[in-house]
Amino acid sequence: MKKLGSLEALAEALRRLPGVGPKSAQRIAYHLLQHDREGASLLGRALLQAVEQIQHCASCNTFTESQVCETCLDAERDSSLLCVVETPSDQLMIEQTLTYKGLYFVLMGRLSPLDGVGPKDIHLEKLIARASDGIVKEVVLATNFTNEGEATAYYISETLKARGLKVSRLARGVPVGGELEYVDAGTIARAMLDRRST
Amino acid sequence: MKKLGSLEALAEALRRLPGVGPKSAQRIAYHLLQHDREGASLLGRALLQAVEQIQHCASCNTFTESQVCETCLDAERDSSLLCVVETPSDQLMIEQTLTYKGLYFVLMGRLSPLDGVGPKDIHLEKLIARASDGIVKEVVLATNFTNEGEATAYYISETLKARGLKVSRLARGVPVGGELEYVDAGTIARAMLDRRST
Repeated sequence: MKKLGSLEALAEALRRLPGVGPKSAQRIAYHLLQHDREGASLLGRALLQAVEQIQHCASCNTFTESQVCETCLDAERDSSLLCVVETPSDQLMIEQTLTYKGLYFVLMGRLSPLDGVGPKDIHLEKLIARASDGIVKEVVLATNFTNEGEATAYYISETLKARGLKVSRLARGVPVGGELEYVDAGTIARAMLDRRST
Repeated sequence: MKKLGSLEALAEALRRLPGVGPKSAQRIAYHLLQHDREGASLLGRALLQAVEQIQHCASCNTFTESQVCETCLDAERDSSLLCVVETPSDQLMIEQTLTYKGLYFVLMGRLSPLDGVGPKDIHLEKLIARASDGIVKEVVLATNFTNEGEATAYYISETLKARGLKVSRLARGVPVGGELEYVDAGTIARAMLDRRST
């Protein structure tokens, strides 16, 4: 077959997107070139600009275009509370509950020894420095309740408690609207152990 | 939540990819920025270059970086045969069979009135001009055997036959290795009607 430098390079580059194999990459390339060249240019520029502009917040480690992100600069937030989340999406979910007014630290990942993700990759040193600023009184661990998220929470908890910090974890239990019949036994067991007086 | 111009622009641009919704777009953006900035730059440059460089072959309508693609320029091909396919991928499949040595015309689509794709969108005028060059003796229709592909083949066939051209269609029948028990009735019916003496 004929060699098409730019087209092949595009298909090859599209494979860098998560979950895109050779066939999909080719289909996406054809689609963009045939039906959405404007979108392709737009995406091309957005990618280059994002790579150039976006860095990690010096304080909370999330993605930002400035030295320190807007959330960290917000003077109305309670700087004695630091909530640790895995990703910016998780932070967004917590913001949407309107129940938390403190600051955040975004790990940008979770411990996962099998994938080679260790304490360094989740910026643990930066978190320790951040939590030891003398202002933070309580660290709320809001990593996911998956095996990896739980292990991450445990590891961070042990590390921070060894430095005399107060550490808490989001409550586990039956979800709001949950019917016991359809909730898994592990969740019910945890809810029973953690039951609260009313 | 804080406003991140470049990050939001990237997530928005990623939605231009087929099959990517808002959640996936955000996840892809985070993934690229966190784990594969090199890939993001690569993809950004590849997109811009492809949009800039790639055009349609003046002869066969496929994607190419030159005026006329390499296949069309290949002097060893039989220029009396013109095979009509829907996409460059289809062309590639036919090339891989090593059974066809003629030239191609790539429609870059198929007739689909419900999606607003008419004769103009599949470059029918260009195909008619190409097939009427006085050298082409037979047009082989190799559009897909879907409803839309069949309708496209029928429409092209009528148009070209009205101009005195010989038109053929890929044979339909039981696939190689096919077991009758698992082949659909429509295919068997067609294979029965098109049966050949041995």
